[in-house]
Amino acid sequence: MYLGDEAWPDLGTYFEEESLALVPLGSTEQHGPHLPESTDHVIAEAFAREAADRTGFLCTPTVNVGVSGHHRQFHGTMWVEPPVFREYVESLTRNLTAHGVDRVVYVNAHGGNVPHLREVGARLRQDEVAYAIEWMWDESIPDLVDDLFAQNGPHGGPKETSMIQYLEPELVHDDRLAEARDGGVASVDEADTVMHGSRTFYDAADNTDNGVLGDQTDASAEKGEQLFEAATEQLVALCEWLDDQAFADLMPEDHV
Amino acid sequence: MYLGDEAWPDLGTYFEEESLALVPLGSTEQHGPHLPESTDHVIAEAFAREAADRTGFLCTPTVNVGVSGHHRQFHGTMWVEPPVFREYVESLTRNLTAHGVDRVVYVNAHGGNVPHLREVGARLRQDEVAYAIEWMWDESIPDLVDDLFAQNGPHGGPKETSMIQYLEPELVHDDRLAEARDGGVASVDEADTVMHGSRTFYDAADNTDNGVLGDQTDASAEKGEQLFEAATEQLVALCEWLDDQAFADLMPEDHV
Amino acid sequence: MYLGDEAWPDLGTYFEEESLALVPLGSTEQHGPHLPESTDHVIAEAFAREAADRTGFLCTPTVNVGVSGHHRQFHGTMWVEPPVFREYVESLTRNLTAHGVDRVVYVNAHGGNVPHLREVGARLRQDEVAYAIEWMWDESIPDLVDDLFAQNGPHGGPKETSMIQYLEPELVHDDRLAEARDGGVASVDEADTVMHGSRTFYDAADNTDNGVLGDQTDASAEKGEQLFEAATEQLVALCEWLDDQAFADLMPEDHV
Amino acid sequence: MYLGDEAWPDLGTYFEEESLALVPLGSTEQHGPHLPESTDHVIAEAFAREAADRTGFLCTPTVNVGVSGHHRQFHGTMWVEPPVFREYVESLTRNLTAHGVDRVVYVNAHGGNVPHLREVGARLRQDEVAYAIEWMWDESIPDLVDDLFAQNGPHGGPKETSMIQYLEPELVHDDRLAEARDGGVASVDEADTVMHGSRTFYDAADNTDNGVLGDQTDASAEKGEQLFEAATEQLVALCEWLDDQAFADLMPEDHV
Amino acid sequence: MYLGDEAWPDLGTYFEEESLALVPLGSTEQHGPHLPESTDHVIAEAFAREAADRTGFLCTPTVNVGVSGHHRQFHGTMWVEPPVFREYVESLTRNLTAHGVDRVVYVNAHGGNVPHLREVGARLRQDEVAYAIEWMWDESIPDLVDDLFAQNGPHGGPKETSMIQYLEPELVHDDRLAEARDGGVASVDEADTVMHGSRTFYDAADNTDNGVLGDQTDASAEKGEQLFEAATEQLVALCEWLDDQAFADLMPEDHV
Amino acid sequence: MYLGDEAWPDLGTYFEEESLALVPLGSTEQHGPHLPESTDHVIAEAFAREAADRTGFLCTPTVNVGVSGHHRQFHGTMWVEPPVFREYVESLTRNLTAHGVDRVVYVNAHGGNVPHLREVGARLRQDEVAYAIEWMWDESIPDLVDDLFAQNGPHGGPKETSMIQYLEPELVHDDRLAEARDGGVASVDEADTVMHGSRTFYDAADNTDNGVLGDQTDASAEKGEQLFEAATEQLVALCEWLDDQAFADLMPEDHV
Repeated sequence: MYLGDEAWPDLGTYFEEESLALVPLGSTEQHGPHLPESTDHVIAEAFAREAADRTGFLCTPTVNVGVSGHHRQFHGTMWVEPPVFREYVESLTRNLTAHGVDRVVYVNAHGGNVPHLREVGARLRQDEVAYAIEWMWDESIPDLVDDLFAQNGPHGGPKETSMIQYLEPELVHDDRLAEARDGGVASVDEADTVMHGSRTFYDAADNTDNGVLGDQTDASAEKGEQLFEAATEQLVALCEWLDDQAFADLMPEDHV
Repeated sequence: MYLGDEAWPDLGTYFEEESLALVPLGSTEQHGPHLPESTDHVIAEAFAREAADRTGFLCTPTVNVGVSGHHRQFHGTMWVEPPVFREYVESLTRNLTAHGVDRVVYVNAHGGNVPHLREVGARLRQDEVAYAIEWMWDESIPDLVDDLFAQNGPHGGPKETSMIQYLEPELVHDDRLAEARDGGVASVDEADTVMHGSRTFYDAADNTDNGVLGDQTDASAEKGEQLFEAATEQLVALCEWLDDQAFADLMPEDHV
Repeated sequence: MYLGDEAWPDLGTYFEEESLALVPLGSTEQHGPHLPESTDHVIAEAFAREAADRTGFLCTPTVNVGVSGHHRQFHGTMWVEPPVFREYVESLTRNLTAHGVDRVVYVNAHGGNVPHLREVGARLRQDEVAYAIEWMWDESIPDLVDDLFAQNGPHGGPKETSMIQYLEPELVHDDRLAEARDGGVASVDEADTVMHGSRTFYDAADNTDNGVLGDQTDASAEKGEQLFEAATEQLVALCEWLDDQAFADLMPEDHV
Repeated sequence: MYLGDEAWPDLGTYFEEESLALVPLGSTEQHGPHLPESTDHVIAEAFAREAADRTGFLCTPTVNVGVSGHHRQFHGTMWVEPPVFREYVESLTRNLTAHGVDRVVYVNAHGGNVPHLREVGARLRQDEVAYAIEWMWDESIPDLVDDLFAQNGPHGGPKETSMIQYLEPELVHDDRLAEARDGGVASVDEADTVMHGSRTFYDAADNTDNGVLGDQTDASAEKGEQLFEAATEQLVALCEWLDDQAFADLMPEDHV
Repeated sequence: MYLGDEAWPDLGTYFEEESLALVPLGSTEQHGPHLPESTDHVIAEAFAREAADRTGFLCTPTVNVGVSGHHRQFHGTMWVEPPVFREYVESLTRNLTAHGVDRVVYVNAHGGNVPHLREVGARLRQDEVAYAIEWMWDESIPDLVDDLFAQNGPHGGPKETSMIQYLEPELVHDDRLAEARDGGVASVDEADTVMHGSRTFYDAADNTDNGVLGDQTDASAEKGEQLFEAATEQLVALCEWLDDQAFADLMPEDHV
Repeated sequence: MYLGDEAWPDLGTYFEEESLALVPLGSTEQHGPHLPESTDHVIAEAFAREAADRTGFLCTPTVNVGVSGHHRQFHGTMWVEPPVFREYVESLTRNLTAHGVDRVVYVNAHGGNVPHLREVGARLRQDEVAYAIEWMWDESIPDLVDDLFAQNGPHGGPKETSMIQYLEPELVHDDRLAEARDGGVASVDEADTVMHGSRTFYDAADNTDNGVLGDQTDASAEKGEQLFEAATEQLVALCEWLDDQAFADLMPEDHV
C-alpha cells in the first residue's frame, strides 16, 4: 500500500494491525554521462513500492535528496549536509510512530546515506521509539552481483546501469556506455583510494574524471530485471521477518 | 528541464547560461476522506514541471514531506518539525548554488510550509547566497479561485479537490465529496478559529472532524484545469520576471 | 498584578489559584521619522499591564527585542535571529510553568513575531507543557481599525501613531506626520509587494524609503484612546475565556 | 541617548560619530521577602540610562530575563537556560554592529549572567565583530561596598536593598527587613557553600530559606544614593576609556 | 580503581555497591617557557588517580583538551569551543550513569573549565540524572598556597611549577624559572586586568608576554609534594562526604 | 615530538616548518573479560607516539572517549553521543590550525569512530581549513592480520589481544583467553549480524554474551610486536607521503 495514494480513513485498519513502514531514500546526484541524476531515488522507490505491493506493508513517499556532497563537482548534484539529513530522517521517522508504526525499513539506494541511517536507527532504537534498519539492494544479493559483472563498480557502474535500463530505459544514454567506462575508472582496484591503510580521498572527483567506476558496457536490462527480482525477494523476506518479531525483542538488551 | 532525468554533462550549458531553479515542495498529510495524502506534493510537482517544460528553466525533484504536525491526529500524516524542515530546505538550496543557481522559486502547495520558506529565503538573501522566494498557486489567482467556488476552503476544499481531479483523477474518491463536506466545516467563517483577535486553534482536529473545510461537491476536473492553466501562467511569468532581474537588484538594499 | 513589582512570598497565593500569565513582547525597530523605536514594546507592555490591572491576572516584564531583521537598513533597529527568538520565548515560557502557570497570552505588538510565537505555542501545547497563544491588539478590533483610518498601514501608520500619541505623546514627532506619509508609501496596495502570487520583498527598505506605510496625518491621541479601550476589552475577554477552560480541553485532541 | 525614545533619522549622526552602546541586562527573580523580583533589571537599567545621559553614549532597552535557574524554587522567578541567554545576547549584539556599533558595555546587575556575558564577549572579540565587556556596579566600587556594610550579602542583601530604596522606594517592603535577615543567612561565611574546595551548592534554596543573604537592616536610601553615584562615575569612566581606544587595540593580539 | 585498567566483569561489583566516579579534566595549553603544555591534565590526572587509589572509588580516563581559547596566541595550545566542551562533558557524564554512577567529582586543574563544569553540573542535577561537582586542588587549600608563595600566580606560576616539579620533574625547564618570571607578570596586581570594575582582558596575551604570572623561582618539588598531599586529603574527604550522602539529599530542593 | 611534553617556545620552529599533527583517538569501552577498557586508546596513543618519535612529526594528547554507545550494556563503557564526538574532534582540529597545522592524521583504534572522523575530515577539507584523514592500524596491514590469525575478530579478538599483550602486558588477563573465546563468538560469520542484506544488529550485546569476537587463544605478545612494527611502518609512510604533498593538491577539486 502506498501511503501517498490513500485517503486517511482508509489507513485506519492498517495502523491498527500492522506497524511496518518502508521508507525509500535515495539521492539526486551525478551518475556519469549515461545515467540520470535520479538514479538512486528511482531505484529506492521501485524496490519499496514493489515490496509494499507484494506484501501489503506500507510504503511512504521518497526522500529524494540525501548525502551527496562528495559529488559536488559535477553539474546538478543536489545534497544536504549530513547533520541535516540525519535530523530530517529522524524527525520524519519519529513522527510516523504517532500512527502506530514501530518498525521501519529504510529502503536506501545510495551508499552515502548508510552511516547516517545507521546512526538515526541506533538513536531511535535506544529511545525505544522504533526499530529502524537500513537496507541496500545490492548488499542483499552480493553473490548475484558478483556473478553478473566482472567490474560492477560502486557508483554508476553496470550494476546501477542495468537497474535503470530495466526500470526507466528511456533515461539511460545507451550510446554512452563505452564513454562512461573509458572516461571513468573501470576497476575499483585501480582507483587508488587507500594509502597505507587510510582512505585518502573524499570526493568522487578525486579519482574519476567523469564520476563513475566499473565497466558499463557489461550492463543490460535483462540483468537489471534479474537483480530487481532477486533483491525484491530479499526485501520481502526482511519485511516478513521483521513483522514476525515481538517489538520487545527488537529493543536493546538489558545491561548485563 | 527536469534535473532528475538528466545526465550531468547535459546540464553544463544550462548552468552556464541560466541560474534559476524551481524546487517543488509539498506535504504528505491527510486531505479528508476523498483526497490522497499526496495531494500537496502532487500539485507542487505538477506546477513546477509544467512551468519548467514551458520555459526551459530547471525543475528539481520534490520535497515530499513538510511541516504538517497540525494534521497529526489523522492516519498517515507525515511531517518533520519546523526547524528540521527549514534546515533541510536551506541546506538543499545553499548547495544548489554550487552549480551556479542564484535564484530559486519554491513551488509550494502547502500553507504550513509558507513561513518557514520565507524565513529560509530571507536568510539566503541576507547572506547574498541566493534569492529564493515562495510561490503558492492559489495565491497567484485569488480572483479566479473566488469566482469558481462559493466556499473554497483552505485545506481539502473544492479548490484542491478540483486540482487532483484534473491531475490525478484516479486518486480522488468522487463518491465521498458530500461526505467530505458534511463531516467537515463547509464555511471557514464557521470554523471558529479566532477568539478576541487570537488564533486559538493549533491543529486541524481542533475544529474539524474529518480534517477538511469548504464544499467539496463544488469541485470538478474542468475547474481544476482552469486553475492549473491560470496559475501556471502566473508561475511562468514569475520565472521570466525573476530571470530578467540583475542579481544585485535582488539582493538587500544598503543601509540608509 | 505585575510580577516585577512583587516580592516572592506575595505571589504564592496567585500561583496556587491562578495559572495565567500575560507576557508582553514587542520589538525595538524603526517606525519612521515620527515614531520612537520603542513603539512596539511600549504598546505591548501597555496592553498587558492594563489587562492585568483590570483582571488580576499576572503580567511579566517585557521582551523588548524581537524578530526585526527586515528593518535592518534603518538606524537603531535591534533584532535577534528568528531561531534565537523562538528559543528565548520557549525557554522563558517553559520555566514559567515551574510555578504553576499553564496558560500564557503573548501580548504581542509586532507582526514579525507572529509566526514564531505560533510555532513556540504549538510546541508547548504538543508537549502538554502549557497552552500559549499569540494576541495582537489590532487583530482583535479589525472593524474599528478600518472605521478610523482610510489607510491604516501595517507598520508605522496612523494606527500605531495614534496609539503612541495616546500612550507616550512626548515620544511622537507630531511635526513630521506629513513627512512620514510623503516619504513612505501611503497606500499598501501601492507597495508592490506581491508579484504573480509570490511575496517578492523581504525588507521594509525594499518598498519604502522611510520605512513606513499609511497616512500618518490621520492619527490622533483620541483615536489612540478608542483603540486602546476597545482592544483592552478584547484582551480582558480573551483572558477570562482562557481562565474558564479546563486545561485538558486546551490540550491536543487525541488521534482519531 | 536612549535608543527606544528616538526616531531612526535622529540616530544617524550618532552612528556616524560614535560606536558605543550600553546594553542593560538583569534578571527577574526572587530577591527575598522585601525586594521586588525586578530588582536586578531595575538597577541595570538605572545605571545604563544614567551613564548614557551623562555622556551622550547610546543606551538600548533592557534584557529583563536572564540566567536565574538557581532561584527556581521561589515563586515568580523567571529565567532562560544558559545556552539560550548566550544566543540571545550574542545575536542582539552582532546585529547592533549593522549600524556601526563596535564596542558594547553590558551593564549587568545579576551575578548569574556574568560568565555567559564573558563567553559571548570573547566570541565577538575573537570574530572581530565587536569588543563587548561585562560591567557590574558593585564590582566597580568594592571598597565603598565594604565600608558601608558589615555583611553586604551577594544576593538580596543590604547592598541591593539600599539601591532599590534609592531608585524605587515604593517597591521595597521596609517593614520586612528584619524578617529578611532572620529568615535568610546573615553571614555569607555561614552559608556553607564550599566543601573541601568544591562549591557543593547549586541553588539559592540549598542554603537559604528565604533566598537572601546579608543583613538587610543595614540598608538605607542614602547609602543607595552613595553607591549609585560612585558606581555611575566608574561606568562613565569606563565608557570614556573605551571610547578613547582604537578599535584595533581592542582586538585580539597576533599569534606570537 | 582506574576504569581504564579494568576488564568489564571486574567492575560489576563496584557499580552495584558504589556510585561515585572521579573524572579528571585539564587542558593542553601553554604554561610559559618552563612548563609543559600538559601541565593541567597531568595535575588533574595525578589527583584523581591518587584519590581513587586511596579510597577505592573509580577514576576514569582524562579529558585532556578543554576551554583554552584564551591561550591561542601561544604555540601548541589546544582547545575546543565552550559549547563543545560542555556538550562533551555532559554526554560523557550522562552515559556514565548507565552503569549506576550517580555522583561525579570533576577533578579539574584548569580555571578556564570551571564555569562550564558548573553549568553542566547544574543541568545534570536539575534533570536528576547525577550530582556532579567541580573540584580544583588549589581552591581546597587556599591557606597553604598563600603560606608557601609570595606571588603564586593564577597560571604557570610557582604553584603549578612546584606541582610539576614534584609529579613530572623531567618536564620542567628548571633553568628557565627566572626567565619565566621576568618575561611574564610577577604580580597579579600589576596585571591590569580590571578597569573601573570591568574585566577588560580576554586573552593571556593581553597582559603577559610569555603567558605566565607569578614568581616561578619560588617553586620547588618539596612544595609540590606538600601541596599534593594536602589537596589529596581534601579530595579524599570530599569523596567520602559525597559517598555518605543520600542521593535524594543531593537533588534539588522542592519548590517552596 | 609529543606536544604535551613541550613548553610553548620550543614548538615555534616546528610550526614554522612542519604542519602535520598526529591526533590519537580511541575509546574507553568493554573489550571482553580479558582486556582492559582502555584497549583502544592505549593502542592509538602507542602508534601515534611511535610514529612521531620516528619521524619528528607532532603528536598531540589522546581523545580517550569516543563513540561506544553500542557497548553500553557492559560495565564501565564510556561514550559520548555521535554528534558530540564529531563536534569535539572538529573544534579541536580547527583550533590546531591556529598554529599552522594544515594536515592531520587521526590515529584511531576504534571502529566506531570511523564514519564520524570521515565526516569531520570531509567538512574540514571542504572548508579548506585542513586536510584530515582517518587511519586505523589493522586496515593498513590486512594481509598480515589475515596471516597471523584464523579468526581475528573485529572487537576484542586475538588481534587486539596481541597488541595489548605487547604494549601493556600487565593489563591482559592471560588466564581468561579461553573464557573470552568460549563466552563470545569465535567466528564472525556465525555472529548473524546481517539479515537479507540489512545489518539488523546495533549493539555488541545483540550478538555476543561477553562482548567479544574471534579466538583470543591465538594471541601472543610476539604477534603484537609484529603487528605494531608493520603498522607503524605504514603510518610513518603515510605521514611522509602527506608531508610531501602541496596543500593545494590536498584540497577539493574544482567544479568540472
